[in-house]
Amino acid sequence: MKEKLTIVKVGGAVVEDEQQLAQLLRDFSAIPGRKVLVHGGGRRATKVAERLGIETHMVGGRRITDADMLEVVTMVYGGLVNKQVVARLQATGVNALGLTGADADVIRSHKRPLKDGVDYGFVGDVDVADGAMLSRLIEAGIVPVMAPLTHNGEGCLLNTNADTIASETAKALADFYDVTLIFSFEKKGVLRNPDDDESVIPTITRSDFERYRSDGTISGGMLPKIENALSAVEAGVSRVIITLATAIDGQHGTIIL
Amino acid sequence: MKEKLTIVKVGGAVVEDEQQLAQLLRDFSAIPGRKVLVHGGGRRATKVAERLGIETHMVGGRRITDADMLEVVTMVYGGLVNKQVVARLQATGVNALGLTGADADVIRSHKRPLKDGVDYGFVGDVDVADGAMLSRLIEAGIVPVMAPLTHNGEGCLLNTNADTIASETAKALADFYDVTLIFSFEKKGVLRNPDDDESVIPTITRSDFERYRSDGTISGGMLPKIENALSAVEAGVSRVIITLATAIDGQHGTIIL
Repeated sequence: MKEKLTIVKVGGAVVEDEQQLAQLLRDFSAIPGRKVLVHGGGRRATKVAERLGIETHMVGGRRITDADMLEVVTMVYGGLVNKQVVARLQATGVNALGLTGADADVIRSHKRPLKDGVDYGFVGDVDVADGAMLSRLIEAGIVPVMAPLTHNGEGCLLNTNADTIASETAKALADFYDVTLIFSFEKKGVLRNPDDDESVIPTITRSDFERYRSDGTISGGMLPKIENALSAVEAGVSRVIITLATAIDGQHGTIIL
Repeated sequence: MKEKLTIVKVGGAVVEDEQQLAQLLRDFSAIPGRKVLVHGGGRRATKVAERLGIETHMVGGRRITDADMLEVVTMVYGGLVNKQVVARLQATGVNALGLTGADADVIRSHKRPLKDGVDYGFVGDVDVADGAMLSRLIEAGIVPVMAPLTHNGEGCLLNTNADTIASETAKALADFYDVTLIFSFEKKGVLRNPDDDESVIPTITRSDFERYRSDGTISGGMLPKIENALSAVEAGVSRVIITLATAIDGQHGTIIL
């Protein structure tokens, strides 16, 4: 039987708010056994860019990453956010080690080609995550803390969506562990009624999803999130949980199986 | 017999200049066997600080690190410089992994107390480097790339001199390896005559050093550099080499034994 491993993805809003971050670090520390943290940092990158006089351009929620913006996200994701989270986790007794995809070559990607005429710039679409190297680090007692940056193997860093980092890491580690992937966000889970925060759907399978999609229960930005989760499950991840950032204990939220 | 390990320390001026950096990466890649790179980044930190409207204050060549400056060096050393070097090394086939002292708890330090009335702020004096964890990473085929940042174990990152990172890492790894520590700088080695770049002293022992110090051959900023090198040798490092950044092959420069 495979050992259990929990991967938690937290967005930028959580790591940038002191109170939410403190809570998250306590909750993450309390997760037993092997684990991985994946973080965002977009809002902080936008703030630092602004202070440097660099304008932020988003298309469909994704950051256009020119050479200047790549320097900003490398500083903010790989440096500021990642190292502060690592140092804080160390203080709670978690042996955290910060990683971008370039570190130990754990995630390779290629520069995204033009999409619908949009040039996203230095944005990476993942080719491969190295589950063997990650598991080697994890078996050495290390808790990887992953920043949303990858590399192309030719010396270039690439800005990469944190949800993608989390799901690709989960899939790569599914060969080695019984993986639970937790996506934390601002709601208690996938809601049956978007106006009722208590209407959490407890579990969603592929067939449930098809039904909810066709009857309109699930729509908009939640569709790609659940599609992503289902594809992780279909690739061997045991379960994906979508839950509040303050409820990452695996007991709350919507379970995708 | 212990395996050989080479630790190369390069200053900020080298990693910030594209031509010198390219040469360094080629030379570092060519070093056979187990190795570690330690880098600075001070000039780049000063530039980023300036763009952010944060003034740089130095006392005796050391950066006063207030909370704002700590964010800058965390971004620049831990993010920008470290991750760019890691990605570039990966492109040359070196399995680089970037580390601050907080990552995997490899170097702990304490905040420097007031010194001669000067408050250096968030500057760390090293307590301990974890040679066992570093050697575990190295034996997994990893080449650590170390940024000049440490942590205090209580969640706080601390700005730490890159020479100190290099010598403390070398001492900690001397229990596990036959360590050569190479400090690269802008001269061909320790010069007998500062006006003659070819007057490199080939070897210096403790007794040579005492003689050169008393007769004035070695003076000024070179004194603490060699004192630091001798203390590394006395703590078990096999040899320290002081050489040009473009001559880190172990065949050039001044050897301190």
